[in-house]
This record gives sequence, C-alpha cells and structure tokens, in this order.
Amino acid sequence: MHKLRMGIVGGGKGAFIGAVHRIAATMDGRAELVAGCMSSDPARARESGRESPWNLPEDRNYGTWQEMLERELARPTGEGPDARIDFVSVVTPNHAHAPIAGGFARAGFHVVCDKPLCMNSAEARDLAAAQKQGGGVFAVTYNYSGYPMVKQARHMVAQGELGEIRKVIVEYNQGWLASKLEDSGQKQADWRTDPKRAGIGGAIGDIGSHAEHLLRYITGLEITEICADLTSFVPGRALDDDANLLLRLSNGARGLLYCSQVCIGGENDLRIRVWGTKAGLEWRQEEPNALCFRVDGKPEQILRRGNAYLCPAAQAATRIPAGHPEAFIEAFANVYRGAFEAMGKAQSSKFKAQSGGPGKGGGAGGAGGLGSAAAASSALDYPTLEDGARGVHFIQKTVESSQSERKWTELSPNDHGNEHRKLGSKP
Amino acid sequence: MHKLRMGIVGGGKGAFIGAVHRIAATMDGRAELVAGCMSSDPARARESGRESPWNLPEDRNYGTWQEMLERELARPTGEGPDARIDFVSVVTPNHAHAPIAGGFARAGFHVVCDKPLCMNSAEARDLAAAQKQGGGVFAVTYNYSGYPMVKQARHMVAQGELGEIRKVIVEYNQGWLASKLEDSGQKQADWRTDPKRAGIGGAIGDIGSHAEHLLRYITGLEITEICADLTSFVPGRALDDDANLLLRLSNGARGLLYCSQVCIGGENDLRIRVWGTKAGLEWRQEEPNALCFRVDGKPEQILRRGNAYLCPAAQAATRIPAGHPEAFIEAFANVYRGAFEAMGKAQSSKFKAQSGGPGKGGGAGGAGGLGSAAAASSALDYPTLEDGARGVHFIQKTVESSQSERKWTELSPNDHGNEHRKLGSKP
Amino acid sequence: MHKLRMGIVGGGKGAFIGAVHRIAATMDGRAELVAGCMSSDPARARESGRESPWNLPEDRNYGTWQEMLERELARPTGEGPDARIDFVSVVTPNHAHAPIAGGFARAGFHVVCDKPLCMNSAEARDLAAAQKQGGGVFAVTYNYSGYPMVKQARHMVAQGELGEIRKVIVEYNQGWLASKLEDSGQKQADWRTDPKRAGIGGAIGDIGSHAEHLLRYITGLEITEICADLTSFVPGRALDDDANLLLRLSNGARGLLYCSQVCIGGENDLRIRVWGTKAGLEWRQEEPNALCFRVDGKPEQILRRGNAYLCPAAQAATRIPAGHPEAFIEAFANVYRGAFEAMGKAQSSKFKAQSGGPGKGGGAGGAGGLGSAAAASSALDYPTLEDGARGVHFIQKTVESSQSERKWTELSPNDHGNEHRKLGSKP
Amino acid sequence: MHKLRMGIVGGGKGAFIGAVHRIAATMDGRAELVAGCMSSDPARARESGRESPWNLPEDRNYGTWQEMLERELARPTGEGPDARIDFVSVVTPNHAHAPIAGGFARAGFHVVCDKPLCMNSAEARDLAAAQKQGGGVFAVTYNYSGYPMVKQARHMVAQGELGEIRKVIVEYNQGWLASKLEDSGQKQADWRTDPKRAGIGGAIGDIGSHAEHLLRYITGLEITEICADLTSFVPGRALDDDANLLLRLSNGARGLLYCSQVCIGGENDLRIRVWGTKAGLEWRQEEPNALCFRVDGKPEQILRRGNAYLCPAAQAATRIPAGHPEAFIEAFANVYRGAFEAMGKAQSSKFKAQSGGPGKGGGAGGAGGLGSAAAASSALDYPTLEDGARGVHFIQKTVESSQSERKWTELSPNDHGNEHRKLGSKP
Repeated sequence: MHKLRMGIVGGGKGAFIGAVHRIAATMDGRAELVAGCMSSDPARARESGRESPWNLPEDRNYGTWQEMLERELARPTGEGPDARIDFVSVVTPNHAHAPIAGGFARAGFHVVCDKPLCMNSAEARDLAAAQKQGGGVFAVTYNYSGYPMVKQARHMVAQGELGEIRKVIVEYNQGWLASKLEDSGQKQADWRTDPKRAGIGGAIGDIGSHAEHLLRYITGLEITEICADLTSFVPGRALDDDANLLLRLSNGARGLLYCSQVCIGGENDLRIRVWGTKAGLEWRQEEPNALCFRVDGKPEQILRRGNAYLCPAAQAATRIPAGHPEAFIEAFANVYRGAFEAMGKAQSSKFKAQSGGPGKGGGAGGAGGLGSAAAASSALDYPTLEDGARGVHFIQKTVESSQSERKWTELSPNDHGNEHRKLGSKP
Repeated sequence: MHKLRMGIVGGGKGAFIGAVHRIAATMDGRAELVAGCMSSDPARARESGRESPWNLPEDRNYGTWQEMLERELARPTGEGPDARIDFVSVVTPNHAHAPIAGGFARAGFHVVCDKPLCMNSAEARDLAAAQKQGGGVFAVTYNYSGYPMVKQARHMVAQGELGEIRKVIVEYNQGWLASKLEDSGQKQADWRTDPKRAGIGGAIGDIGSHAEHLLRYITGLEITEICADLTSFVPGRALDDDANLLLRLSNGARGLLYCSQVCIGGENDLRIRVWGTKAGLEWRQEEPNALCFRVDGKPEQILRRGNAYLCPAAQAATRIPAGHPEAFIEAFANVYRGAFEAMGKAQSSKFKAQSGGPGKGGGAGGAGGLGSAAAASSALDYPTLEDGARGVHFIQKTVESSQSERKWTELSPNDHGNEHRKLGSKP
Repeated sequence: MHKLRMGIVGGGKGAFIGAVHRIAATMDGRAELVAGCMSSDPARARESGRESPWNLPEDRNYGTWQEMLERELARPTGEGPDARIDFVSVVTPNHAHAPIAGGFARAGFHVVCDKPLCMNSAEARDLAAAQKQGGGVFAVTYNYSGYPMVKQARHMVAQGELGEIRKVIVEYNQGWLASKLEDSGQKQADWRTDPKRAGIGGAIGDIGSHAEHLLRYITGLEITEICADLTSFVPGRALDDDANLLLRLSNGARGLLYCSQVCIGGENDLRIRVWGTKAGLEWRQEEPNALCFRVDGKPEQILRRGNAYLCPAAQAATRIPAGHPEAFIEAFANVYRGAFEAMGKAQSSKFKAQSGGPGKGGGAGGAGGLGSAAAASSALDYPTLEDGARGVHFIQKTVESSQSERKWTELSPNDHGNEHRKLGSKP
Repeated sequence: MHKLRMGIVGGGKGAFIGAVHRIAATMDGRAELVAGCMSSDPARARESGRESPWNLPEDRNYGTWQEMLERELARPTGEGPDARIDFVSVVTPNHAHAPIAGGFARAGFHVVCDKPLCMNSAEARDLAAAQKQGGGVFAVTYNYSGYPMVKQARHMVAQGELGEIRKVIVEYNQGWLASKLEDSGQKQADWRTDPKRAGIGGAIGDIGSHAEHLLRYITGLEITEICADLTSFVPGRALDDDANLLLRLSNGARGLLYCSQVCIGGENDLRIRVWGTKAGLEWRQEEPNALCFRVDGKPEQILRRGNAYLCPAAQAATRIPAGHPEAFIEAFANVYRGAFEAMGKAQSSKFKAQSGGPGKGGGAGGAGGLGSAAAASSALDYPTLEDGARGVHFIQKTVESSQSERKWTELSPNDHGNEHRKLGSKP
C-alpha cells in the first residue's frame, strides 16, 4: 500500500498538539506529511510551514484552508507524494473544526479531527451530513482510548471479568489554569478560556469530554442522567474551570465524573476506576503502562503493557517490549493506526466504520453513517464522528444541568426495558 | 497523676473495634481497664469479660450497662484501681450509643463514644443535655483525625499554605459488602446493614461520616449544601451501600464526598485531596505516614511522619522515629490522648472543651457545652460531642437529599456576609 | 493464665526502643510491667522509673540491674503482680547485653534481648551456657520478622512458590547519620558510633544484622560466603556507616546485602527482594502491609495484610482488618507474642524452643538448647539466642572480610554434598 | 538544513531495536530513511526492506552491508533524498558492530551504533582509528542517557546540589531469560546468549553496560575498581545471566552495580540511586517522568518532566507538556537529536565531539578524537565512541574480576592526587 498523504490544518507556532499529530501519524511509516495550512493567519501559516519540523513543500504550504482544499482537489488521485492528500488532520481551536472538517469531509477527504468535535449539536449534525456526502473516514482524536492498557480494560469489561458494572469514577485534574494564565498571552490558555473559540465548555469541554469518552469506551455504557455543578474559580474567567457531576449510567450503575484546571499539582491526571459485581479496575494516564485489577477475595493484580497475557487489542497497540515504557504519543499513534486501517478499507472497497464506542449495531456503519460499532473481530479501532457528536451533546447537557435547579438532567434515552436498569435501588 | 480507670461497654466476641479501644486507651500508660460490660447479652458479656485480653475482675465484669453504671457509682472516687471508673468507652452498635453514653455522661462520667454518635439529631440533643448536666468530657472517636499527617494537613491549611480553599475531594471506598455478607452471620456486616441498629445510613453513616469529619477537621470549613445520590446495590439490602455527593462549602469552595462498601478491592481506602489558590495536598489512610503537598510551579513534596519539619501537633502525635511506621492503632490512641488531657484538666479545674472541629468560638467551651473550639495553643485535640452531632445531622440531610428531586439541600446556615462566599462563580 | 510479669533494663530518658518494648509486650494483655532498672546511672534510673509512662512501683524501681536481679529473686514465684518477674527485657546499649541478659538467664528468668545479641562470639557462647543453665526462654528482638507479610513471604518460599531461590537482595538504608550527629549529644547516635558500647560494627551491626536475619528468616538459607566493603564516610567516625556485601548462600544462590546510615532521605528503608526459578517477591518495611509477588508470565500480585488468602502465620500475626494499617509496634508485639507462647509452654512443661530461623533440627530444642527450629505446626515463632549468635558471627566476619584482600570470606560451613550447591555456575 | 539521509544495517524481521531506531531518528523531522541492509542474510534482508514500515526504495534495499557501503559511496553528496546517505545506524548483533561501523566510519559516514560498541578493546581501538580517518560523528546509543530526568539528575550532581557523592547504586533487573528461552528460537534470546555474537558478557554486556554508562553520565565519576561475581543460573547457558559488583569510584565513593536477566517480574527495571553529602536522588526507567530528590532534613521532592523548574537540558529533551508522559522512544530520539546536532556542525565546519560522558578535556574533541567532553554550553549531547570504548573495557574487566580470587580489579587509573580520594575511610 502506498503511504497515506497527510495534510494538516493548524498546529503552527505556540501550538502543542500539532506536533503530536505529526509524529503520531507518521510513526509507523504509514503516512507522510505533504501539505498544510499551519495557522489562520496566512503569513504566520506560511512561515510556520517553512520551518522544521514541518518543512512543507513551498507549493503545498497554504495560507488558508480554503485554498488548501481547492488546490488539493485539483491534484490527481493516485500514488506518490505529489498526488492529492488522502486525509486532513484538523488541529485548530474548537470553533474552526466544523467549517474545516466539514469542508474536507464533504469533498471526500478522510478527516482526523481534534476533540471536542465542534461547538454544538447542530454543527455535529452538519458534519455527519458532510461525511455522509463525502464518504470518507472521520476520526476524532479521543487519544486516551489509544492506550494499550485502556484497551485491555475495555476487553476485561466486555468479557465480563468485572461482572455487572455498578460504579464508575472518572476524573481529570489539571492545575495549569489555577491562575489567570490567559492574561499572559499563553496561546493554549488564551483560546481555551475564550467562549468564542472554545465553545460553551471550559474544563468540561477541554478535558471533561475526554473523561466522558473514556468512560464510554471502557465500560460500553452510556451516561443517561447527569447532575452537574460547574464553577469558574479564577476571577474574570468566562468559562468553567472546575466541574463535578453525578452520573447515572445505562445499566443503572452510578458514577462520578469530575475534572478541573485549578487543581494545583495536577498535570494531566486522568484516571478511571470501574467496579462491578465481581471485580474492579483502575487506570491512570500518567502511569499508562499499568492496569490495576482487583478480584473479590484475591490479591490485587497489576497488569503491564507488553505482556503475552494481555488481549489481542492491547498487544496490537504495543510497539516495544514490556518494561520499555510507551506513552502519550504512541497512544495517539494508535488512534491514527485504527483510522488508517479504516481508510485502507474505505479505499479498497465499501467502507465500514469501526469504532471503540459502545454502539450496538453492526449495521450502524456504511460510508456516511454515524455508526459507532465495536468491531470485535479487529484489534484496531478509532473514535468516530458519532463519538464526537455524543461528546458535544454531553458538554451541552452538562452546562444545562449546571444552570438548572432540577437534580437530574437526562442525557440519553434510557433503555427502560433493559433488565440491568434494575441494578441498584434507593435505600 | 493516677492512671485513669477505664470501663468499656461493648466489644465482646466477634467485635473488632473493642480491642482497638483497649489498646489505644492503654498504650501510653495513662489508663487501665478495670470494668466492662462486653455484650448486650449478659451471659455472653460475662464470658467475654473473663477471657484474655479482657481479664476483667470478676466483680466488675458486668452483665448489663445499667448494672455497671449503678455499681460503679457506688464505688468511691479517688486513686487506685479499685475506685470508680473515670471514663467509659461506648463501643456498641449505633442504636445503643445514646442510652448508654447518655446514662454515663449524665452521671458525671467522662465518655468516649464511637461514631456515628447516635441515631438522629434528637438523640444528639439529649446527649448534649446529659453531658451538660454531668459536666464530664465527651469524645467521639473520629479516629482518622488522630493521624499525625492529618494534623499536619490541618496545620498547613490553617497557616494559609494552600491559600483560599477551592476544592475538596474526600472519598472512602471499601469492598467488603460487595456481596450479601450479612446473610453469613458475620457480626460486623449484620448490624451495619440493619436500620434498627445502624440507623438510617448504611455506608454514609458507617464511613461517610468519617469522611465528613475529616473534611471539616482538615479544612476548617463547613459543608453548607449537598446533593446526594444514595444507592443500595446488593439486592435485599435495606441501607445504602454506595453514596455520591456534590458539596458546597462555607467559603464557596466546591467538593465531592463519596463512599462505598461495594468497591471491590477497596479495603479501607479513605483519601482526601484539598486544593487552594496556592497549593494542594493529598492524604491516604492506607499509607498514613506520608502527606503529599504540591505548590504551584514547584516539585511535589512528600512530607513524612516523624520529621522535625512537621508542626508541633504532628510531632506530638508521633511515638517513634521516622521510617518506623505508625498506623491505625496509634492514631486511635491519639484521640484518647487528647481526651485524657481534657479529662485531666476537667478534674483539676474547670473543663474547657478542646476540639479538632472547625468551630469558631472560644466561648463555646464550658463543661457542658457543645463547643468545638480549635485550641491553637495545644498540640492535643479530640473530636467533641458537637462534632458527633454535626455528623448525625449530615447523615440525616444526606438521606433527605437523596430522596429529593431538588438539586441542593441546605446543611448548615451559610455565612452570607462572608466575602469568601464570593469564591467561585457560575460560568 | 496469669499475666506475665515484665521487668525492663534500660529504656530511660532519651531512649527510643524502651517505649516500643513496653507497648509491644503489653499490647495483647498478656504481660504487665512491674519492675525495672531504667538506666546505668542509678539516680537517672530511679527518676525515669517514677515518670509516666513507666510508673514503676517504688520498691521495684531499681538503681542497678544487679540489685534488680537479687531482689526479684528474693520474691516468691506464683501468681499476682507482686510475685517475681517472669521475664526481663534487656534494652540497653549493646555492650551491656551479655552481662545483664546472662545474669538473668542463668538465674532462670526468661529473657528478651535487643539485637545485636552481644559484642562477640565468645559472649554469645557464654549466653548460651547461661540459658542452658537457667532453662528459660531467650528471645532476640529481630523485630522485622514479626511483620505479617514477612511471615507470608517466608511461607511462600517454604511452600516452594518461588521454586529454587537464585538471588536475594536485602538492603537497609538510613540517612540519619549522614553528618556527625554524635557530636550534638544525641543519645541514639552517641552510643551507636562508639566502639566501646556498640561493638565492632557500626551500620553493619545496628541495621545490617537486621538485614541478615530477615534474609535467613524469609529464605531459610544460610549465608556461606561474603565479600564485604565497609566504609566510614563521616570524618572522625570510628565505625562503619556504610556497608556493601556480595553474598553466596547455602544452596548456591547469589545475593547482595547492603546498608548505610549516610543515605540521605532513607528513613528506615529496609527492603528485601527474593527471586527463584518460578517467581519473585519484594517487601518494604516502610509500607509493611503489602507484599509484591511476581510469577513468571503472569500479572504482578500485591498481597495485603488482613486478607483470608494469607497463610495462618500471617493471619495470626494480624490484629485488625485489612486496610486498617498495622505497623512497627504491632510487628514488635508479634515477637513478644511468640516468646510468650514459648514461656507459657516452658512453664507448664518441658520447653521447646521455637524459632523463625532456618535451623533444620527438630531436636535442636530443649530447655537450654540453641535450637533454632522452625515450628511448622505453629503460627507463632520468635528469634532465638542461636539467631542472635549467628548475627554476631556475621558482624565479625563482615569486619574481617572488609579488612581482607581475599575476595571471599567463609561464614558458615557449606553443605557441599547438597545438590542445590550446583545451582549457578561460573559463566 | 536538508533532512539527514539515514541508512540502517540490521533490524529486520524478529528484531526489536531496529524499529526503535527508525522512529527515534525520524521523529523530529530531521532525518529520513533512504537505504538499508536489513539482515545478514541477503534474501531476508531484501524481503524485510520491501515491507512496511521500511518501504526501502528497491535500488537502496541492499543484500549486504558491503554492497550498501560501495553503492552509497558511488552516489553524489549534496541535497535531496537521492544523494548519498549522511549516516548509518548499526543495529546488528554485537559481533557485527566493529566491521560494519568501522567500514562506514572509515569511509567518512557518520555512524550511530548500538551498544555494547564491539567485542573487545582491540576492536574499540580499530573503531577509533576508523573514525579518526573518516572524520565523521560516531554516536553510541546508550539511550537511557536521553531521558529528560536523567539529564536533570546529571545537572543536579554537576551543580553540587548533592554535595560530594558518597554512594551510588545502579541496578538493572530483567526476568525474561529466567528459563532457557534461547532454545525456543526466540531471536532476541538466541544471539544474546551466544558468545560468538554477544561477546564475553551476557547480562553484564547487554544491560550491565547501560548501567555503567548511566552511572558515569549522571555522576561524572569513573569506576576505578570493581569486585565482580558473575553467574550463569540457567543450566546450559554459556554466558552470565546475573552479575553483582562492588564498586569504587574516582572520588573515593563506594557503589554497587548489579544486573540480572533471571529476576522474574523484572521487565526493564533500570534504577539508579545517588547519595552525596547534602542530598540524594533516585530515578527509575520504568517511570521515567519522575525524579526523586531528597535533601537532608527536608521533605522528599518529586520532580517531573515538562516543568519550568527543570534545567535547560531536561527541558530541551522534552517534546510535550508535563503530565503527558514521554517514554523510551522519545529518550532514544534525544540521543539522535544530539548526534544530529553534531553532524550538522561537522558538515558546516570543523566537528567537535560533544558527549554526555564525564570526560574532562575540552581538547579531547576534534574530528577523529575519542573525546568525551561534556558540553556545558549546549543542552544537547550524545554518547561518544569513547563512552562505548569504556563500556567494552568495563565488560572485559568485570569478567576478569569474576574469575579472579583477588578482591579488587583496577578498572581505570585513579587520580591519586585528587583530594576527593580521601573520601571515606576504612573503619
């Protein structure tokens, strides 16, 4: 197979995640960066594109994404680095996701888009329509689902090793916005605290949405009701920098989701704990090579990446032996790897979306579908547009709940016929 | 000073906490056990009292607590082991606390009572009246406040090292009731899941109340509003075995309190994390000799018990050098040590209650008061009857909140004039 | 059974371990302190004995140990606190162990003596003769063998769960003597760095001997050859404050034993790691409630104190439930518990020594024997005089090895007919 | 600057480290793989080179390294992917390092060679001569020196934050060769246990040499004397699988270096602990983002990668923010980054070797020198040919020491005039 030709929008000077996308996409020799529009400011874009490590060819170092779309479309399809890009990675601030990703998707390009997917559910619907029209793959970089031990956790839940899930605690604590960093001109803080560019969610949008996806990815459950308390602690900040939620899940399980950007000392402290009727598990992003598993009445077990006792998906997501730690970038690369596999299939035949999401239907796929189907037959998966859309819905409902005096806000229709719904009762 | 004469009610065969009280009370050579009524069943009581390690003198090995109260009162005051007991430790199931502790307190004995203090706020008021009448010391064994590193945490908050508190997460996860252990006849499970003996709270009463006290002890803040979701996961269990609460605190800080007895693998996993505007801290009961402290922009610090850099209260609560770990029983003994100091003062002069609680008033003391005054001048403190009463109120309000469709249930009157109240805003 | 009457020699003002002995011995209601000689200075001794927590009766608060021995012998045997002491705990600096412990042992008292047992092997032989003459129990407080998870480790090795042992690393790092603390008058540092009172070993005697016993206790192996490098890093210090040893063990296994008192940040960091042909284990004194166990090809396991999956000896050495941590003092109390059981047997019938040491012979016991027999039938054990004698021999040979230019110094005669001896070969 | 053109020798099917070199070298957009000889078997070599992720151009997918050398030399120098390779990465088994690396070095190519550098010191001298003749950069992938927190540790020692170093413990424990894996045909085990391909060292060569370099890199000290005990535990294995060494260092400090491949449960457990007169530090490869630092009398500090309080070299070695963990591959890429910087200088002007080694001389550089000069002015460094030569010398001397009955084997001439040499004395 030819190397996939990658284009990138965003990621220029002062950005953090652009470099991660570049390394992650090219790590396995499956893709090469050939085009880009590095900034919303044309001069800045071209300046960034010329520099290392981008080194974009002069004629594909674009000043605007519209120019990039138009001129890439004008290139031939086919093999070789000079042909049209196969996919675009959209790594801009949130408000630009929908127009750019939508534009490329509608034109038939595959899209890899950062999270949160877009500003609101209306935009998410437009993106779904665009993807349906274009027929390409659309992946959303909920990158934490790319970690091998997260895949192992998902596998153990799916295999019933925990029994019926009763309780989930997912948390994501950071401290980098404990003071008003946005006033210093720091680029990351600047747009993330600006509702025009970040959307209606601050911490809940930026990191809470990762927590939401991780919960769904590992447990296969949906969040059906939430009770949220959002706060903005730093004076003068428009968006929340702290969020606490009670959760009820689709099988009747209870949960907590909380995140914050004012928890000093928290660097990128994403953790999840899941307990079922038989066992519990725990995973921490900052020590991602270990997974703690606790079976009732037995010694605690620590599973580690790279060992033969792990499930195929965890082994397939691993590049080097146990004890040689892998980390953030490799997990990110695993999302790309899953998307690349789908792109390969989409190009050779009829594309069927594969997702790590908890969707039930095998028929949910199809080139333009929002299908979030777990592909049990494959060790590779990636978060889909539907996963992204649910994340946007989650953010909206959280803000709604926080403003409400009602205790519970419904998030997803619950499957009332489900016997699991009987799990747990009011004491 | 003479050794304090200790009597005990409860703690016979199958009990766990009775032995802890015995060791903790006598560890420092300040008290000796001279009398007891080991069970609510007279025959069992006498049988237990005869056995090691109790070895009660035959004439003070009582069959009922009423008999014990009456016959001890008939003994002389004064020195020597044969004189009347100085204090009674009440270590029965919850429903028996109020009559027994009340009986002894009213008669003028000092009382050390297990938590939760009693079944409801009415009983708590009766106990306060009894104590006032009797004039003795009344301590409640919120034993986790006895850990040196908890005292260090409290000190650091009080000294302003964290700045203004913004967020608190306190959790207490156990897994021992993940299946229906109470059906096996296990004594601890049996009464704790029985509303007649445990009260209206299951997990929230048994362990959630510890979490509530620990939060107040360390932060000096009151919980003003709660939003609770209690669940009973094990089929057929009458009381909650899982509790999740959103909190709002008296200075406007936000928080989470959650506890569970169905979190498999959780042994006695009480943890607290506190973040302020300057720094954050974290403590775990299962590794109690360490305290994690994180100042913005600096390396994380691990403070350890037994070092000269700790505050006087933490040093005073330590018996052996750093690296020679101390644990649960020593912390428990520190509660007794604080109570003994108060008993000594009460006997030599006018007693002034000293508490680890966050109460503000120096005038709250007095022999019969509910005063929960932090005694800054002393390294020793103990949880008071008022702390216990607040715990009972907390349990009641949590159950009320869980049954309500309203989001917030008010717990304590808030100090609306307080400028801290402005901390945090709705985004 | 009556409470055992305890006497103590040493432990007055400025001491650390005296208080530990008192609490440990009396924790389970099996013993009460009735007599003592708290210091080698008669006035200081009496002053200490009068104070809390000692509160010695005036007529048994002795000025010299000789007076104590004579006057206790003059008391009747029999029941009740006023009768002659049953045992004496010797907690003085090392140089005083042999005369005092020997004096009491020869007179028929049971003895509990701190480690290292004495100053040299000649003294150890005298002590053995004294014990044989007196017929009492003689325990040496290698207290780390009292930890439940150490007993579990020993059990797992004995059960063959690790296979044949190949490698052992035992280390004990402290930092408290990194500067010349002895010049400040600190009592602990003062005598430990003085050859007249501490003996020929500094760090190797004070803490290395604990490491040596722990290795033997857990593995059941003897150290047969050593290659030692002792250093005194702090200028002007006469004894070693750092020791590094290569080891060869009785089955051909290799090992390392190292200890130091100049490793800054080390508080009391005793650790042991053992690997066999099937599995490995690891234990750390500073987090004593956990034991790490690693079987080839399987997830790491963390065993925790207080669980039903542990061996009987580990369960018997536990007082409170899992998750309620136990620590140093409780482990110390377990050594006393084992010794008390032996004292009970010795008094009721013919005494048979029980030891945690690796001795092989069941016939090694007998009232006066040095027998270090593992009593498989009992969950209780204690380190014997023979264990102490081997420790003294180890210290002597380590100093000898350090001064030698030969690589290997023989420590114990090796069992050359043993097939295990073939384990490992020169590559 | 143009992208550096990379060639690779070795790394085909069944290899592990080849993929790591490819990702590490290309991660930062500074290099692209254009040629290779993937195996010593020509057919296998070509088959591997054709496959993803290698995708070598057909005309540069060589069957032998000699062919590769000849035909690359025939290509023009200059810009663009079709010109002659700039550097070759040699990732074969050890015995092939010297001929291949020597061949390319002599011809003027830059070389990046895996460790241990070669089979013996004679080969090392030949390599030095070849490099001198060719004038290129020669880097040896002691990759653990690429970790940011290792660079921080080195910085803190160099800044005197630990005071004078007294003791170093470096260890490297693996368990993957606990049974006779080489008999299963596993490629990694096969050559590593074969003296013809691995050399005279088993564990000591494969991983002990990493430990040796890490010690030198962090402390800046040389190992002057060793006392080694090598063992082969697995029956029928020709090389050591376990090694224990006592060390004496160039300033008089003492140390331990031990490594093993039969420590079950050890994955890649490389750790180093260093103590000086003022403070100590500890680092573990399996949790590489943290560095523990302990100053006498203060709380332990945990420094973490990605923070502004770190030294420039640690910050320069970091690609993504704190809390987003980096790991093995990124550290490996940092070695390449340092080598690339040197290659860039070598091409633009007169090359001066920069090394992380402890060499003293600024004059040690020059195009063909073995100079191992710490470049204080630069945040980038890489291990040099001299570092590699010292590693080979270390392995040889360790084997010699293990076979000797003398206690100490001299490794490096000691600087007897050095006042530090007085550090430590025989007690």
